[in-house]
Amino acid sequence: MRLMLVGYGNVGKAFRKLLHEKKVNATISAIVTSRGVMFRDAEEFATEKRLTALEALEEVKPDVVVDMSVANYRDGEPSLSLYLRALSQGIHVITTNKSPLALKFQEIMDTAKRHNAKVGFQATVMSGTPSINLARVMPYVQTIRLRGILNGTTNYILTKMYEGLSYEEALKEAQAKGYAEANPELDVNGFDAAAKLAILANVYLKSRVTINDVKFTGIKGVTKEDIERAKRENSKVKLVAYADRNVIKVSPEMIRQGDELYNVDGVNNALQVETDVQKVTIIGPGAGPLNAAYGALSDLSLIINGAELL
Amino acid sequence: MRLMLVGYGNVGKAFRKLLHEKKVNATISAIVTSRGVMFRDAEEFATEKRLTALEALEEVKPDVVVDMSVANYRDGEPSLSLYLRALSQGIHVITTNKSPLALKFQEIMDTAKRHNAKVGFQATVMSGTPSINLARVMPYVQTIRLRGILNGTTNYILTKMYEGLSYEEALKEAQAKGYAEANPELDVNGFDAAAKLAILANVYLKSRVTINDVKFTGIKGVTKEDIERAKRENSKVKLVAYADRNVIKVSPEMIRQGDELYNVDGVNNALQVETDVQKVTIIGPGAGPLNAAYGALSDLSLIINGAELL
Repeated sequence: MRLMLVGYGNVGKAFRKLLHEKKVNATISAIVTSRGVMFRDAEEFATEKRLTALEALEEVKPDVVVDMSVANYRDGEPSLSLYLRALSQGIHVITTNKSPLALKFQEIMDTAKRHNAKVGFQATVMSGTPSINLARVMPYVQTIRLRGILNGTTNYILTKMYEGLSYEEALKEAQAKGYAEANPELDVNGFDAAAKLAILANVYLKSRVTINDVKFTGIKGVTKEDIERAKRENSKVKLVAYADRNVIKVSPEMIRQGDELYNVDGVNNALQVETDVQKVTIIGPGAGPLNAAYGALSDLSLIINGAELL
Repeated sequence: MRLMLVGYGNVGKAFRKLLHEKKVNATISAIVTSRGVMFRDAEEFATEKRLTALEALEEVKPDVVVDMSVANYRDGEPSLSLYLRALSQGIHVITTNKSPLALKFQEIMDTAKRHNAKVGFQATVMSGTPSINLARVMPYVQTIRLRGILNGTTNYILTKMYEGLSYEEALKEAQAKGYAEANPELDVNGFDAAAKLAILANVYLKSRVTINDVKFTGIKGVTKEDIERAKRENSKVKLVAYADRNVIKVSPEMIRQGDELYNVDGVNNALQVETDVQKVTIIGPGAGPLNAAYGALSDLSLIINGAELL
């Protein structure tokens, strides 16, 4: 498989490293960044030609586009157009960038289906922890509801608040440790979890929803008093993502001791899938360059082995 | 796909029901029990010819043998011979019976590989909860250690003991609810969990082990005092299965509040897979006819879709 990498930040570099370490049967034919394209596999990026990813696609004609660029929730561009162009040529797409899928899931999947191309997007939800790809090993079920902790930044902050820190102190610590960005707005207001929930709802509930359909509240309103009250009631406050056939929302909730989500602390994330057969919970790291890169790599393996479109 | 079902108890009946309800692209060509074979798909079994499963295999020539017969830990027979014969003819095998795999994992897989046949065995560990098949969506990793709660009967008994019951009272309640058999020996002495752990170690650690390599201690020695002491230390006693490259054992352990396994109660089971990339925990029901049948059905789906041999 010949890959074209788009975006070459921490995740892109971790992906390249993993690809070599794990001796995956694939080669990097080109790397594209905002500075242009490099038509070879090298650790250090150097512009060889000033092209956009869309232009590079035509020159490189890869088997798989691996998008590790930054999310753009306004319109999903330039990734969205890149995916549609690639898929319509039968080129597979793997992405760690959730904005195109959170906005245009159905259009992307329909295009893929029409041209017999695959879309791998494990890394868009819970990074390398099989949240999306778990669906591949749970066939034939009808999902009744989804419930999860999908954002590592807010879960870390809430964990630290449970340990006694104020919201501001916890946020600062999260930023110092690299778990929160300098501008943490999209994490703390619940938007990031909402984008992930929209993707999950499309996969598991077959809901044709976008990020715009998700009601979300973040954790900025959570006070020390809320945390203390929860503690007295043997509970913790968690930012819970919930979806069924009628409801799709993200909001802070009291999680009681005894609940499988109660001990999901720090940057760990979790997803519960309740189906007509059983309720399954998966817990694992929800962020990190290595984890996101691994999510993309596991998609690549599935594509190499001829997995079905989800 | 033409299926030959072997064993037609609660699991076999649940499997047949699911197969029809879910409109799976497969037909039951024969059902074999200790009473003989029936060469058609019907809810009620009626002997049409007195044949063993091995004899029926030659007459039916199915695409897939689905073994739902009872475990025989002495030598895995008659299932073991049936698998080897079927696989050597390129016939796939799906099983909910863990004894052949706990005894002869390597021989079965080698035979399958040589003849390009598949073995589906999700239901042998944690029933329909993807414990085995989770490995399919976590490729390229190196597993460092496995840790889990793999037996529903003992977990139910320990949960009830935590709530104040004695071992005898808890066992009686488990039997009344159908969670423990009249002879619960293989559950309470740790053997069942050990057999499952042997299978998991082969899959994840590539250890060439059998049930005979697992050191196991059951829960019969766990006293009310042990439970109370654990409680005082913010812990619960759980029957923990553990394996790494050097150790493979099942024993009662204190699990501290905060551990992902702490809230795995009742008949729920859990598996933690710690790899060079991440630690993932999956939690779900570990037993029940519908759940075991679903595990087999999910294997069938993977075989229909051309999944690789694990």
